[in-house]
Amino acid sequence: MYVLCLDLEGVLVPEFWMELSIATGIPDLGKTTRDIPDYAELMRMRLRLMKEHQIRYTNLQSLVEKIEPFTGAKEFLSWARRNFQVMILSDTFYEFANPIMSKLNHPFLLCHHLKLSSDSSIVGYVRRQEDPKTHVIRALRSINLSTIATGDSYNDVGMINEASHGFFFNPPTNVVADHPDIAVVKNFEQLKEKLEKLLSLQV
Amino acid sequence: MYVLCLDLEGVLVPEFWMELSIATGIPDLGKTTRDIPDYAELMRMRLRLMKEHQIRYTNLQSLVEKIEPFTGAKEFLSWARRNFQVMILSDTFYEFANPIMSKLNHPFLLCHHLKLSSDSSIVGYVRRQEDPKTHVIRALRSINLSTIATGDSYNDVGMINEASHGFFFNPPTNVVADHPDIAVVKNFEQLKEKLEKLLSLQV
Repeated sequence: MYVLCLDLEGVLVPEFWMELSIATGIPDLGKTTRDIPDYAELMRMRLRLMKEHQIRYTNLQSLVEKIEPFTGAKEFLSWARRNFQVMILSDTFYEFANPIMSKLNHPFLLCHHLKLSSDSSIVGYVRRQEDPKTHVIRALRSINLSTIATGDSYNDVGMINEASHGFFFNPPTNVVADHPDIAVVKNFEQLKEKLEKLLSLQV
Repeated sequence: MYVLCLDLEGVLVPEFWMELSIATGIPDLGKTTRDIPDYAELMRMRLRLMKEHQIRYTNLQSLVEKIEPFTGAKEFLSWARRNFQVMILSDTFYEFANPIMSKLNHPFLLCHHLKLSSDSSIVGYVRRQEDPKTHVIRALRSINLSTIATGDSYNDVGMINEASHGFFFNPPTNVVADHPDIAVVKNFEQLKEKLEKLLSLQV
């Protein structure tokens, strides 16, 4: 039995910050690690912007609740859960992800937490550890589990390389150019094909 | 965010071997580690009995598909998945557990595999490692995750002791007598109460 580790944003659901940027009309909120590679710096900017624009978690909650999984994501995930043990590994925050997890039938999710003040201002965040996705794959290997990993960006490279099998899922061209050794699938159909092949090769 | 580690048989669903014993009319198939503490010896007996009675996996499949979760298990699990990341840790086999996982909306499950021959005779089994539940808790701790564990029997003691918080769930009296230091909950209501308390204490 493989553990299939899936990235969340860009694979199953849209990028939360991009959606929040559009909804709030603050373009810089839509920047990602592709624009500002240093995660801590990126988060400092996001927190500053939210403070400046007096955006609280309660203001974001209704936006977050409207976000829907990508077309085909629910069907793909249902299929995947019948054939693998599925773990979603994301660098997002439970406070953003929880509503969409309901829509996906509550798969197992590891990500991070926002720190909220008593008036629900977003004052910080807690990351579980540095390079968390790679560490999860290592932890799974330490208990004799085989893993398959897929994601769309730089923060997935570690887990993809560390897993027994790994692919990029519909990555931007710069990510592919920087990691030409990693195989690419472009959509759920191609991913399913790769996974079915791995299932057929299993003893 | 806590990872809630739940035993399967005796907590969410009936003991598979007990059900198979009743359905096949072979009393010894219903023996568990309570009767034969050595797991390898117990499995040798089960495999021998199935060979003697010419029971193949295909004969068991329809029995296994009829097994239903305990009353209240689905509702408890739904609630738990909204509040925790839930992992089911079991010493059963995917070949027995998969049909009931569909009925429980495919939670994340770690257990073992049966070895089937080409005519679907059950010729052996593959355990991931010795004391697998305890090792999972350790692996989760190695990536900075807090854990809560519950189960009903001897093979749950390791994970209950290793987890950040742990309880027995409706255990037999001999298990309690041998481990008087472990707190006991008797049903889903009491378990939910304990878990709600832990949630309320979380930062």
